Order: sequence, then C-alpha cells, then structure tokens
Amino acid sequence: MERVDSKIVHEGPRVEVRQERWRYADGSEADREIAVVDDAVTVIPYDDEVVYLVRQPREPVGEAGLLELPAGKLDVAGESALECAKRELVEEIGRSASEWEEVKRFYPAPGFAQEEMTLFVATGLVEVDDHAPDPEERIEVVAWPLDRIDEAIAECADAKSLVGLYMLRDRLAG
Amino acid sequence: MERVDSKIVHEGPRVEVRQERWRYADGSEADREIAVVDDAVTVIPYDDEVVYLVRQPREPVGEAGLLELPAGKLDVAGESALECAKRELVEEIGRSASEWEEVKRFYPAPGFAQEEMTLFVATGLVEVDDHAPDPEERIEVVAWPLDRIDEAIAECADAKSLVGLYMLRDRLAG
Repeated sequence: MERVDSKIVHEGPRVEVRQERWRYADGSEADREIAVVDDAVTVIPYDDEVVYLVRQPREPVGEAGLLELPAGKLDVAGESALECAKRELVEEIGRSASEWEEVKRFYPAPGFAQEEMTLFVATGLVEVDDHAPDPEERIEVVAWPLDRIDEAIAECADAKSLVGLYMLRDRLAG
Repeated sequence: MERVDSKIVHEGPRVEVRQERWRYADGSEADREIAVVDDAVTVIPYDDEVVYLVRQPREPVGEAGLLELPAGKLDVAGESALECAKRELVEEIGRSASEWEEVKRFYPAPGFAQEEMTLFVATGLVEVDDHAPDPEERIEVVAWPLDRIDEAIAECADAKSLVGLYMLRDRLAG
C-alpha cells in the first residue's frame, strides 16, 4: 500500500493532524485522518531489588498520578532513541545506567497515531549527584520491589508500561 | 488537579484536538494539547487450541499487515464497551462468544490522547453463519496456535495486543 496524498489540517505545539489518502495493492483507495506526535522511548530501570517507576499527572486521561515506567519524547533535534532514553532516565529518576539494551519497538496507538515507541532495559544504575527534576513535570519516583511486580502490573493502566513490566517479569523469571 | 479551560482547535471525522489549561493542587497551571478519539475495545478470543488474531493495514504507522487482537472503536451512539466488543468480534473474525469477561482497562497513549481501552476475554466461540466481513477493513483472520503464543508476542508490535497476549499467556499458565 502507498500514501498517495497527505495534507496537514492541524499543526499544534505537540500534535499535528494529517488528512491522507492511501492506495492498496488491489487498486482501491481510502481516506485516513492521522495524528502525528514525536516518537518516544520507555525505560525499564532495575537493580537487584527494585524497578524504578514514576507517578505523574496525565491530563489527557484526567489522572493525577498515573503509575508508569520512565518515558519521554524524541523532541530534541538529531537525538537517537538511546540518547533520549539516557537523558530521560536522569531527568525522571535521577540515575544513569551503565548497561543499555533495546528490547522492543511497538506502536502505542496504530489505529490513529504514527507514534513509535522504543523500549530499553537499563541496568547498572548509579545516582546522579546534581539531579534537579523539572518541577513542570510533577514526577514522583517510586522504587517498586521486584518481588511485588505482579501488583505493579495489576495497578498499571498505561499500555507502554504494561508491556515493559511484563517483559521485565519474563527477564526476572528467566 | 482540574481542567480550567478547554477549546477545540481541530475537529475532524475521527480525531479532535483540544487546547486545554490545567490547574494543579499547588495552584500552578499548565497548557496541554490533547487528542480526542472514540474509546475502544480489544478482545482476546480463544478456544482449546488457538487465539484468533487479525492482520490489517495500519496506515498511521505505514504497516500493510499489523498483527493484532480483534479490536474496534466505540463509535455507535449509546453502545456499551461489551456490546461493542461483541459486535467487533463478529465483524472481524466471524464468531460470537458465549462467555465474556472484562479483564483490564488501560490507556494506549496517556501522554497525548484521552482514549481508554477496555480488554475482554471471549470464550465459547461459535462461527456465525451469515458473516460478511467489511471489505473496507481489509482484515485477514489468523488462527494462532496457543502453544506458540510466545512467537505471537515476539512478532506483535501493537501495544494493546501485547498487553492482551501477555494476559492470555498468564491465564493459560494459571
């Protein structure tokens, strides 16, 4: 299939909307309305005892403290997914990691959004001395015990974090 | 926290964008741009041998045949999530189910979209005789063997389906 037409119908600070026309292998065509946002990364940072989660307000879904893995958007020009993940880990939980592994790429909402998510495992965690969290992000760090990971999965209502927590549970089991 | 202002800045056939202002418990305020789409459902339909998946084009991410669980949008006025799930199961895989269980609610993309996803398990599957799939949806049904569920998880790049497949694996193990 191929995109045969694309026109921007909304251009906001974070969300762009495009009206597109697609042609399929059988020659038929259809219109699609697509939201375009920056691609993003999610990090699974853990040591022998805990995985570091965050609670933060998510205005789009009206939640004051949604439980998530650390994550962020590729909103710095020229930055790779791995560089973004390293930056976000320091910004959100005040730690760097010596070992990084990309474990999955997936689409959070492929029915209407182009966003791609890259998921990393980060280990060998070290506290960063001069960490000053961005007050605008209103993030609370939660050191969640690994032996209670099923409770994190039960409480979590964020798709990317659920995928990451299930993958972490597999690693711990395996 | 509370929404103190909301204004529609884009209103398309499927995607609406709102510019909102939020106030937090500490009295500070921030602007947020939020995509609004219909809420949705995902179904985990399985019997003793297979889980029924679908492959379909996902234009937003440029994939001609993304592997997913059956899913659909709450785009019929007054329809409940369960009614929507029952309708989508027939439309997408030509089967009805005698047993339904809601197993999870989560947000596919809480950083920028309000969408809520409700996940159902459907068992007691029966083929529907007069099933006529919508050619516009271009859906291929895939009967995936349960003893190869780890391969489905490895191939799947759709967040909602990954969550569903992990939950199914837990049920099969438990």
